[in-house]
Amino acid sequence: MLEELRAALGPVGCLTGDDIPEAARSDASRTGQALPLALLRPASVREVSAALAICHHHRLSVVPQGGMTGLAGGANPDPASVALSLERLSGIEEIDAEGMAMVVRAGTVLEHAQLAAQEAGFLLPVDLGARGSCQIGGNIATNAGGLRVIRDGMTRDNLLGIEVVLADGTVLGQLSKVVKNNTGYDLRHLFAGSEGTLGIITRAVIRLRPLPAPPRTALAALPDFAAVLKFLQMAREALPGLSAFEAMWRDYFAFSQNLLPYTLFDTPPPFAIILEAPDDPAFDMLLERAFDEGLVTDALIARSLADARRFWTLREGVAMDAALPGLINLDISLATRRLDEFACRCRADLLARFPGAHVSFFGHIADSNLHVAVCLPGDDNTAQIHDVDAIVYGLVREFGGSISAEHGVGTLKRDWLGHSRSEAEIAAMRAIKAALDPRGIMNPGKLLPI
Amino acid sequence: MLEELRAALGPVGCLTGDDIPEAARSDASRTGQALPLALLRPASVREVSAALAICHHHRLSVVPQGGMTGLAGGANPDPASVALSLERLSGIEEIDAEGMAMVVRAGTVLEHAQLAAQEAGFLLPVDLGARGSCQIGGNIATNAGGLRVIRDGMTRDNLLGIEVVLADGTVLGQLSKVVKNNTGYDLRHLFAGSEGTLGIITRAVIRLRPLPAPPRTALAALPDFAAVLKFLQMAREALPGLSAFEAMWRDYFAFSQNLLPYTLFDTPPPFAIILEAPDDPAFDMLLERAFDEGLVTDALIARSLADARRFWTLREGVAMDAALPGLINLDISLATRRLDEFACRCRADLLARFPGAHVSFFGHIADSNLHVAVCLPGDDNTAQIHDVDAIVYGLVREFGGSISAEHGVGTLKRDWLGHSRSEAEIAAMRAIKAALDPRGIMNPGKLLPI
Ligand SMILES: Cc1cc2nc3c(=O)[nH]c(=O)nc-3n(C[C@H](O)[C@H](O)[C@H](O)COP(=O)(O)OP(=O)(O)OC[C@H]3O[C@@H](n4cnc5c(N)ncnc54)[C@H](O)[C@@H]3O)c2cc1C
Ligand SMILES: Cc1cc2nc3c(=O)[nH]c(=O)nc-3n(C[C@H](O)[C@H](O)[C@H](O)COP(=O)(O)OP(=O)(O)OC[C@H]3O[C@@H](n4cnc5c(N)ncnc54)[C@H](O)[C@@H]3O)c2cc1C
Repeated sequence: MLEELRAALGPVGCLTGDDIPEAARSDASRTGQALPLALLRPASVREVSAALAICHHHRLSVVPQGGMTGLAGGANPDPASVALSLERLSGIEEIDAEGMAMVVRAGTVLEHAQLAAQEAGFLLPVDLGARGSCQIGGNIATNAGGLRVIRDGMTRDNLLGIEVVLADGTVLGQLSKVVKNNTGYDLRHLFAGSEGTLGIITRAVIRLRPLPAPPRTALAALPDFAAVLKFLQMAREALPGLSAFEAMWRDYFAFSQNLLPYTLFDTPPPFAIILEAPDDPAFDMLLERAFDEGLVTDALIARSLADARRFWTLREGVAMDAALPGLINLDISLATRRLDEFACRCRADLLARFPGAHVSFFGHIADSNLHVAVCLPGDDNTAQIHDVDAIVYGLVREFGGSISAEHGVGTLKRDWLGHSRSEAEIAAMRAIKAALDPRGIMNPGKLLPI
Repeated sequence: MLEELRAALGPVGCLTGDDIPEAARSDASRTGQALPLALLRPASVREVSAALAICHHHRLSVVPQGGMTGLAGGANPDPASVALSLERLSGIEEIDAEGMAMVVRAGTVLEHAQLAAQEAGFLLPVDLGARGSCQIGGNIATNAGGLRVIRDGMTRDNLLGIEVVLADGTVLGQLSKVVKNNTGYDLRHLFAGSEGTLGIITRAVIRLRPLPAPPRTALAALPDFAAVLKFLQMAREALPGLSAFEAMWRDYFAFSQNLLPYTLFDTPPPFAIILEAPDDPAFDMLLERAFDEGLVTDALIARSLADARRFWTLREGVAMDAALPGLINLDISLATRRLDEFACRCRADLLARFPGAHVSFFGHIADSNLHVAVCLPGDDNTAQIHDVDAIVYGLVREFGGSISAEHGVGTLKRDWLGHSRSEAEIAAMRAIKAALDPRGIMNPGKLLPI
């Protein structure tokens, strides 16, 4: 089996034993324990196809690995599987300026693709904190969201064409650049968000957009959640190009600001919003109106990129990971208007069960997306994470929300899938999986409950 | 069989024999000949489910019928099948102002849903000429495009949640209003564009947007296609809210203008563009710049809604149907920059084969979508339509385009599907269809080649 793979991929294309790097154990959730049987590193679509045909023949499980920045354990191998890394299948094949599209190999690091688009005068409309390591293929496989979803949509919304290799080695799809193509079932959207369970994404066509001018950014303090909702509605109406509306609850703001060498608001407000939109008089007018109406009690307007960076650093909470070892970040969504009701219930329930825990809330609330940051007291608390999940996802179910807004299901949310999807839906997913991967070799144990 | 259906749906829910209206024969392509065995008219999701369970049990084919405005023959029954009309499953269940979403039953006529959204202060971002008859369910099943795709996307892009009934009667899906939901395969997108072959869409959640202010509209004359491309690029950069960029080739402009009681340009220009964008000084500035650079040789700016209507009436070519009996309207897409090259080749090839035919071109070219209007000389030319298709779709294949940008595949394009989708893709579609509809009762003979 490994002999055949080595013959097909060459020695650098098939690592075994001590040659397999430690990084192949786990994605950024740090929950992966095992090394795979082998690490396959195909350098062409043909090699991906050849490798899968061999694995299919031998019923050998295959775990696709992109940049390993996922937060759901989706790329973690088990010792009886081979991992297939896309890192050697990288590079930009074409930038079509008139068609505003980029043809790119799946293993290309997002930031490389972003910079290439920028050099050609375009915006690549997918962006997230992990940009320096995550790959286009991983972004598609997880349907990544990120920082500008409110304006640019999720990864799937910027995907014009896709090429995938199915479990048996069949190469599927087309690198179409046409925006409109109503010729049957949309395979692009089936593979976007499929987390490696239906096939390997090898290439994609990503839509490019005109480079936006530098935006205007403000950090606003708001007295309560009703004001946040009203302010959001006003911003949507007044600022057509609204590109960010990020909320921080007081607990998050206070904790994150404390770790920074600068102070933005002396007294952390009940809610803080980062507002970003095109540089237009409507921006300041909106803030003034909101101030007059008592919706905004204080606001800082960025006078420079450095100012704006300071707001975003607070929001990204980069220092929190170090300050709170074992911090977990749950990613859920539910009706925007009920987010604070949810946050209050969730905080109370978590603190009742885990007195002294860190619990704080922030999120892309215009997209109904909330993040819950939780750090349990004590050293090793992996066993208790199940209880955190049970509390948070139980509430999500009660509120009719989604247990995963952006990060995907992987292994970490697999057993909770039924909280957001019906039995009939899960059965339909299984049927589709069996249709495309009849031997069940593609990333088994991920996404679908076992 | 029919007894069981009558028992489940009541006498008004199950029409047979002479009670079946003539309209059940054909969609707007006027290619349907037969009446179905029965016309089912369920009034609730439960009745849809009961009806399908009975059909599934008896292996009876089911043809979903929406507003019958489709142009691909997708809703046409055959005499051995039952048609299932959604007309009684209509009405708006909820408008969620804060969540900016509408929960609507599939049989609701698009225009009713649009007006309800408008009364609540929102835009329902799906719009097409057939709005007075087509249904939300039909729009989703065909993934309809329309007049504002450049700004608002296709129907799928405005679909937040969906409920469908599978062939065996299983009710699937969720009427989720959350924008972000990365919990496994995206069934919304699988059903959008599936043309009734995977199940019956019963309800949907459609995203609403803020009502835009009345836009500014212009009709511009351009000297050649290079100017059109340059003008498009400038418009994209200068007008962020660009909502229409509709092109008419000279042949189309001249013919359509001749049928109108007014004249817009005395000499039909090589290319005419309808430009629509938010009312902003940038609009007139763009036109001036384009004029100075020689890209635009003449332009009319609408001073009133009535002016704008006159431009659109020309573009919609409403009078052409009467003037050209048997007019067919092919709907294709390919790389925008090659549209004129395609049009020239296509015109030459069609006229070589059919001297004296009417051939003209227009389209939503910013979305790479071209319409080819063809009317053959002589009375009954149904037999020759195959030759028209062969010429046009043959060229589409050569140009790497799509044989259906908006209208879907139905029966009329079914045999040409392989011109736009690979054998492997069609095999994957068949596998998915078999997984969800193992007895093949859902709209057989549509979309997938037989
Ligand atoms: C600092 C940080 C910030 C983040 N911010 C965000 C954010 O804002 N929004 C967001 O959505 N996520 C975010 N994430 C999560 C993560 O970055 C995304 O999920 C990203 O899209 C994963 O890409 P990857 O290449 O690292 O994939 P991996 O982690 O390697 O894999 C993810 C999943 O995709 C599969 N996969 C990978 N490549 C392929 C392929 N070519 N074909 C088929 N399957 C494949 C894997 O099997 C696995 O199931 C963040 C992560 C970090 C560490
Ligand atoms: C004047 C005119 C202008 C048009 N303009 C456009 C345009 O700009 N853009 C565009 O894309 N199209 C356009 N069309 C085509 C047509 O209007 C669209 O395809 C529309 O979405 C069809 O909706 P319908 O309810 O009439 O569907 P039908 O014609 O009844 O059915 C279409 C297909 O969908 C299936 N179907 C219908 N309802 C359901 C359901 N509830 N569940 C499952 N399957 C279902 C049918 O089986 C069939 O395959 C136009 C048509 C006309 C006549």
